[in-house]
Order: sequence, then structure tokens, then C-alpha cells
Amino acid sequence: MAGRETLEELVRLQGERVRGLKQQKASTEQIEEEVAKLLKLKAQLGPDEGKHKFVLKTPKGTRDYSPRQMAVREKVFDVIIGCFKRHGAEVIDTPVFELKDFDIAGQFDPMIPDAECLKIMCEILSSLQIGDFLVKVNDRRILDGLFAICGVPDTKFRTICSSVDKLDKMSWEEVKNEMVGEKGLAPEVADRIGDYVQQHGGVSLVEQLLQDPKLSQNKQALEGLGDLKLLFEYLTLFGVADKISFDLSLARGLDYYTGVIYEAVLLQPPAQAGEEPLGVGSVAAGGRYDGLVGMFDPKGRKVPCVGLSIGVERIFSIVEQRLEALEEKVRTTETQVLVASAQKKLLEERLKLVSELWDAGIKAELLYKKNPKLLNQLQYCEEAGIPLVAIIGEQELKDGVVKLRSVTSREEVDVRREDLVEEIKRRTSQPSCTC
Amino acid sequence: MAGRETLEELVRLQGERVRGLKQQKASTEQIEEEVAKLLKLKAQLGPDEGKHKFVLKTPKGTRDYSPRQMAVREKVFDVIIGCFKRHGAEVIDTPVFELKDFDIAGQFDPMIPDAECLKIMCEILSSLQIGDFLVKVNDRRILDGLFAICGVPDTKFRTICSSVDKLDKMSWEEVKNEMVGEKGLAPEVADRIGDYVQQHGGVSLVEQLLQDPKLSQNKQALEGLGDLKLLFEYLTLFGVADKISFDLSLARGLDYYTGVIYEAVLLQPPAQAGEEPLGVGSVAAGGRYDGLVGMFDPKGRKVPCVGLSIGVERIFSIVEQRLEALEEKVRTTETQVLVASAQKKLLEERLKLVSELWDAGIKAELLYKKNPKLLNQLQYCEEAGIPLVAIIGEQELKDGVVKLRSVTSREEVDVRREDLVEEIKRRTSQPSCTC
Repeated sequence: MAGRETLEELVRLQGERVRGLKQQKASTEQIEEEVAKLLKLKAQLGPDEGKHKFVLKTPKGTRDYSPRQMAVREKVFDVIIGCFKRHGAEVIDTPVFELKDFDIAGQFDPMIPDAECLKIMCEILSSLQIGDFLVKVNDRRILDGLFAICGVPDTKFRTICSSVDKLDKMSWEEVKNEMVGEKGLAPEVADRIGDYVQQHGGVSLVEQLLQDPKLSQNKQALEGLGDLKLLFEYLTLFGVADKISFDLSLARGLDYYTGVIYEAVLLQPPAQAGEEPLGVGSVAAGGRYDGLVGMFDPKGRKVPCVGLSIGVERIFSIVEQRLEALEEKVRTTETQVLVASAQKKLLEERLKLVSELWDAGIKAELLYKKNPKLLNQLQYCEEAGIPLVAIIGEQELKDGVVKLRSVTSREEVDVRREDLVEEIKRRTSQPSCTC
Repeated sequence: MAGRETLEELVRLQGERVRGLKQQKASTEQIEEEVAKLLKLKAQLGPDEGKHKFVLKTPKGTRDYSPRQMAVREKVFDVIIGCFKRHGAEVIDTPVFELKDFDIAGQFDPMIPDAECLKIMCEILSSLQIGDFLVKVNDRRILDGLFAICGVPDTKFRTICSSVDKLDKMSWEEVKNEMVGEKGLAPEVADRIGDYVQQHGGVSLVEQLLQDPKLSQNKQALEGLGDLKLLFEYLTLFGVADKISFDLSLARGLDYYTGVIYEAVLLQPPAQAGEEPLGVGSVAAGGRYDGLVGMFDPKGRKVPCVGLSIGVERIFSIVEQRLEALEEKVRTTETQVLVASAQKKLLEERLKLVSELWDAGIKAELLYKKNPKLLNQLQYCEEAGIPLVAIIGEQELKDGVVKLRSVTSREEVDVRREDLVEEIKRRTSQPSCTC
């Protein structure tokens, strides 16, 4: 394909740019914008490259994290990555995932990948248990059509979008003042916009707007509304429609999104009963961009590209705060059993036993002392959150047993040496805190 | 503690230095040296900080990896990280792990952590199945004593070490020529060294040297040999002594190691029967350094610090090559089942079913087409390595069943809708290739 080498070089350079911005700790918006450009370029490499990509925005570095914080990070990543894998994503870079679209006939049918993307977003946010959330969706084409019928000049489109997007933080009065006072929009045009962009709801709002006398005259808006209707149908089949809000004030990232756009926000409880929950900031966002890339497809096919970013750093803080508020102890190791000795001169026996456990895949530790005091060994378990102790004593050795002690309940039972591995596995596979 | 702020600042700066070197793609030896300095500094922050640390040398970046390579990387990391966790390691940085040393009484007993470190190294290399390997061990104190009794001037210690270390790649003649011809060592001194450093063996070699008339006069050498003897005892209890070779020519990293040093090498089969296997380069290395840091401990305790580096980039290449040689297909996704339709107009049913599977934690996909051909869906599974297909058809819907097909055996069976999740879980928990 002519120009492919140049495209690949452009992709490579854009990739460098993204990495450079990350290292320089550029703003997340700037990074997101450049990542979107990167993906657009990659998509131009050809239909096989036009897959659905998911980018995780990861923290810039990890050196300021304590072991506790690292453990929280790991749990969060496990949830996110597990969800992508459940949906068949490949890891193509760290931390970029890709859902395959290797449909052998070539075309894809609209809105199915978008619906899956939103399903993934909802699964992740539910699993993380960071509280109630809402996913706002809108569509670039609806906004375009909307602004057109309201009389917004083409040249002011982007700047008016940016004002409208502030409705999640500012009142309509303030937004209108900005549009009219600072950006030179005619007040009656602003009023017309206001009639629309303060609305949000479910599929019934989509259907209502499909009947809107002015909006339904606009081809773009109709297209966007039609797709949103289809999207809601699929989201209902996916069981997540109750989390989705069609929100006409969502106007972010419109430099690169060409279709559906979405943003997930956490809800804090309303200040007073009866008030609607307020968003406290986004934790994930994304959208579709594929209009441009079709140009480079020899068969003129549309190459799908759906982006999803998850604000993991934000999520880490929230999860951490929640755990602190619940006073929940975060374990920094996964050790299941400490191998301990009750008397002196039993180091060799401890070494043999701990080695047996490791070889059986059990997560075990021992203290690095020849003759540790039993009390110290038990205290170590309490501090580290280790649930079980396997205690070796001279009598137990003669009897061919090991004393297995539950750290929380303090109950001890003699287990035959040959049954120990099974018993430990059985007890550690139960719900936590019941070892 | 006086000077702590300065120490913390030094630690921070050294950490920056390490990161800078990584970004500049400095040589692994240079990085390892600076990491060792970093760990020494960190250990000086106090006894609680003097834990056993393990550093994974990770590749500089991932952008040149295909999905297949990323999948290989992930498998390798899973093995390594799983092993550390089995031994109670905390993640303190990426990719640095730390084994806790919260011996509450304060002191640790020698060689136990070193033995565990070597056990970890052996477990990792065995699990990775990259072929036979050998772990060479030596001790700084033995080399010091050895060179002293052979008559090496103190000033030439480091440079002679570096020559001796080349014995894994060069013959003794060549090494001797370098020591005498280039480094000005007296030939008779070189000959004395040669009598020792060409030796390698098990604990019997340790015992033999403990009886050596000259070496046993040297206090340092005796200390080192005594510790190695203890180390071999523990390694025997850990079941890995057969992988360990006491090799007097191992003389790497002596700028910072103060005690035991080790290096794991892969063995390739000998060129001719009866020859010893030749090392083909190291895949892991480490050692103990703690003499210096004791100075900063208010109670004058020795603060343990054992370093272990695993050459993951090297290991990735080896695993990849092995898989290619075995012509083993590396799956790039973990998808367990494709939800397919046998006739047209069944998209909604597919969406419902795939959503049920996702909600039950099953890894599932569907094609993004409204009416995909069954053949295309089956072909997709074959290419992606997906083992099962859940086929929806009009008759099956009426009968309340789903046709579950094994992609490899091509056998199909009707499964009741309410039993489908269990059946998929049962079949995917069996050894691979028997779905």
C-alpha cells in the first residue's frame, strides 16, 4: 500500500510523543488527545489494524507508593485486566488492550462494539465497588445537528462545545454568560441551546428527540439518535441500561470523537433528600472515532475504532480511601501459612516442611531465625495477616503430625503430615476470615 | 536519626539515577551496579528498611512486541511473580520485590535468607521450563582469602577478579595470559590462582578446601567456606542442592557483594558425549551485601541485604524460541467460548447469552456482526484458539438448550440453558486440549 512506510513511521513517532508526554507528566487531557491521534494513525495502517483499542491511563511511576498502596494498585489492576480478558482482549502494549475485530467478512455492524465497551466499563466499575456510578453518553453527530439547528456558526462549534461541557460543574446561567459574554454567541442562540443541553434521561429521551420537529430535520442528528436508540437496545440486553444516562451536555473530546462519546462519573449521595446525585468527577471515558480512517481502506470500508480510558490513578485513591474508612486491613503479602517451631533446634525440620509446602504451590514463610520464640512467630502472623501457622514440635514429629493453628480463632488441631497440604488448601479456599 | 534526611534524599536521587539509566538504555551491568548502590543506600535508612530485596530487570519498553510476544511475556511474569508471592514477597516498586525480615527480636541467622533466595531462583527457572540450568555459587570472602594466600597485591584484587570471571568464556591459558601479560601479575602467583579457580563441585569441594593447608590459615576464607557449608545443608533440605555448583571462578559484582554470590546459567547439551555441559550465558544472578550497612544501625546489628536479578528479557527470547521450535501456538487471548448463531436474526439472543456468560465470569466473545455465517464463526475460533462454541439456533431456543461444540473434536452436544455455565466451567477446568 503506497505510503505505508510513512504511515508506520508516523505511528512510531506519535507513539514516542505519547511516551514523552507521559514522562513529562503532561495533563491527562493532553495525553488522551495524543493517544487518540495515535490510534487514528494506527487505524490507518489498514483494516486488520482497525481494531477496538482500550488504553489504560496508568500512573506515571510507582516510587512513591508504600507496599500497602502497591497492594491496592494490584487489586485494581487485577479487576480491570480480568474484565478485559473476559471480553477477549489482547494485550498489545502496556497498558494498551485491544479487542479483536478479525470478522472475516470485513464489515462490522454498528453499535455492537460500542455496547460491549460500555458493558466492560460498567463491569469494571461495579467490580471495584467504589460506589454508585453513572455513565453519561452522547453523540458527536447529535451535538453537531443540535448546534446547527440552534444557529451556532460553524467557526464557534468547538468553543461552544467546551462551554456546554462545563454544565457538570457550572450552572446554566454561568455557562450561558460564558457563551454570550466571552465567546460572542447571540443570546437567543444560547437560549435555544439551553432548551436542549440541560436534558438527560434514558431511551425515552432519545425517542422524544427523534420526534422533535427541529432536530428531526437534521440528518446528522437523526443518524446519531438512531444509533443511540440501537445502543440502548443492546445495553438493555447486556443488563446495564439502568447505569446509562443520555446526557446532552456531554461534549468532551470532540476533536477526535466522531460518534458516540461517554463518560463515567461516581455519584455522591445528594446533599438533601430528593435532590439528584451530583457527579464527583469522571473515572472513565471514551468514544468512537472512525470517520476519518475509512479513507485509507482500499475497499472503502469503515474501520472501527472505539477508545476507552480508565482513570486508574483516580480509582486507586478512591479505593484506598474507602479501605481506610472501613478500617479494612490491606495485606501486602499473600502468605497463607507460617511454618513455626515450638522448641529449639528445629530449624532443619522447619526448612524441610516449608520446602514441601512451596513445592506443593502453597504460599508459606518461615522466620529467619534458628530458634525463634513461638510467641514472636505468632505475633508476626498477626501483624502480617497470615491466617495459618503450621507448628512443628518434638512430640508432633514423633507422632507424625503437624499442629495447624488458625491465627484468628486460635484453635489448634493436629494434622497428619501427609494430609497437611490438602488441609491447608481446603481451608484457604474458603471465604477469607474463616481459616 | 541524624543524617536521615540526607540519606532519604540520597536514596531518592539514586533512584532517579537508576530510572534515568533505564530510560537511556544503559547496559544491564551498569544498571545493576547502580541498583545495588540504591539498595545499599536504602538499607542504611535503618533496620526496618534492611529487608531482602529482589529486583527484576525488565525490558526497557514494550512497543516492539507483537500480541504473541506480549502473551509470552505475561506467562513469564506470572511464573516469576507467583514464585515471589509464594515466598511472602511484597511488591514495593515495579519491578522490585521485597521479602520481609520482621524478625521481631532483631537479628537474623546467617544463610537462611540466602538459601531461600537460591530456592526461589531454582523454582523460577524450573517452572519456566527453559531447559537444564546450573546455579554457580562462590563467596567474596573465599576469593579475598584465596588471592591473599596466592600473593595477589591488594591493589590488583579487582582487576584479577575480572580476569578470573572470564573463565566461563575463555580457557585458563587465555585468562592467565591476560593476568600476567596485561595486568602485570607474577606468573607464579597466577599459577597458584589457577590451582584453585578451575575447581568446581558440590559440598565435598567445600569440605576439601576447609582442609586445604594454606586456605584454612586464612580467616576470611574460613568464614566464607563455613557459610557455604551451612548454605549447602539448607539447600539440601530445600531439595535443590543438585542444581548448585560451588565454582571458584565466579567472581562477578565484587564491587558490592560482601558474601555469597551466585549466577544461574542455562546448560546446552555437550558437543560430544562425555563432555561437561557448557553454560550459555546467565539468566539470573545475585549475592549478599551487608557488611557496610551495619555501621548505620544504632544497635550495631547487621542489616541483611540479598539481591537477586532475573534477566527477564533473555528469558522471554528463550521461551519464545522454544515455543517456535515446538511449533506451539501461543494464544494471545484467554477466551473460553464464542457465542455463535446458526441462523439469521439471532443477534439479540447472542447478546443476551454472552452477557449471561460474562456476568458468570466466563471469558466469552461474539462476532460484531448481526448475521454472521456459522462457518466464519467457527473459523474465527480456530484462528484464535478458542476451545468452545455456544451455538444458538431457533430450534434450540424453543427447546431451551444451547448447542455446545468443541472446536478441536468438532463434537456437539445440547446443553440445557440453565446448565450451560456449569458445563463450560467444568470443561475449561480440565487440562488444555480436552475441551
